[in-house]
Amino acid sequence: MKRIAPRSGAALKLAKGEILKIVDPEGGQVSDFLAYNADDVREVISNGRTFDYEETIQLGRGATLWSNRSNPMLTIVEDSVGRHDFLLTPCSKATFRHFYPDKPVHRGCFGNLAEALEPFGIVEDAIPTAFNIFMNVPVDGNTGRLRVDPPTSKAGDHICLRAEMDLIIGITACSAYASNGGSFKPIDYAVTTDV
Amino acid sequence: MKRIAPRSGAALKLAKGEILKIVDPEGGQVSDFLAYNADDVREVISNGRTFDYEETIQLGRGATLWSNRSNPMLTIVEDSVGRHDFLLTPCSKATFRHFYPDKPVHRGCFGNLAEALEPFGIVEDAIPTAFNIFMNVPVDGNTGRLRVDPPTSKAGDHICLRAEMDLIIGITACSAYASNGGSFKPIDYAVTTDV
Repeated sequence: MKRIAPRSGAALKLAKGEILKIVDPEGGQVSDFLAYNADDVREVISNGRTFDYEETIQLGRGATLWSNRSNPMLTIVEDSVGRHDFLLTPCSKATFRHFYPDKPVHRGCFGNLAEALEPFGIVEDAIPTAFNIFMNVPVDGNTGRLRVDPPTSKAGDHICLRAEMDLIIGITACSAYASNGGSFKPIDYAVTTDV
Repeated sequence: MKRIAPRSGAALKLAKGEILKIVDPEGGQVSDFLAYNADDVREVISNGRTFDYEETIQLGRGATLWSNRSNPMLTIVEDSVGRHDFLLTPCSKATFRHFYPDKPVHRGCFGNLAEALEPFGIVEDAIPTAFNIFMNVPVDGNTGRLRVDPPTSKAGDHICLRAEMDLIIGITACSAYASNGGSFKPIDYAVTTDV
């Protein structure tokens, strides 16, 4: 098991068939997650294609995460939480200025993902809306209003994603105050071939 | 007023301060809408940034549409419908095969946008989730399930968007069966400086 320190990020290669296990070791933390086709990073995870094909904005066990080219990228094969977000973009310097004008500006998950993915030729503008693991964003079905609540994940909760193609993955331990209830914590991960 | 024929698309330049009026001339039709920074088309409309800053998935009069670089691109200054979608990607050959296996495959809004935007140096992979004007996608706040209902727009209904920077715009008259209740219709538009 590898550890992502609070308010930082990592990138890794995940081969087709391998399983990425992402663990919330202390509970109440969010991990922003991105996936790119390892053979052509212009193919990238897409919330819109995923919402379209899965016919839901709540992705849990059994759901597929789709690419902008309408190919399956990952399948959620285990999920002890069932509450994740795919609506919101990674926190960034701009979101810190917008939402936390009295707090120090941080580069956020966006900056951490950009740095981690740069060696793979992935630039800032190629970072789309992330799959925000353990992030708890209730949506009012009548008004459309959303809010960011603390995650429902407890210590040891996890999600396992199986790669459906060779992938470059970016993941973070989230840097924003609202998404993790104001407590910055680590995220653990491991690559396995079995859940 | 210019007309976009059923199941086709168009692209245009919209200068900062100009207003694009998009009209549903017969009612019940959808127009997939994209915006790019005219000076650097790597800056593009972003559903995730918009949901983040507007704190809702239902965008209507007064709402701002934001870019992937956290800049305001457009403001909705008039809206006689108030029911649009920003969750789903443009229909494409792949979505026709998926949702309408018994119907002829059509290149859809995705193919129409790609052709219209190609002269501006915008490639297929640079097409994100579109702002789908008049598209009616109710979301169940408890389960996250979504469905595509016929638009609530009546003949003559319209939306007006003011450019907050110089833009390249892509718009369509939608090609999919579900989004417009199975009746393919035109979309009208005009560039003005006043609502």
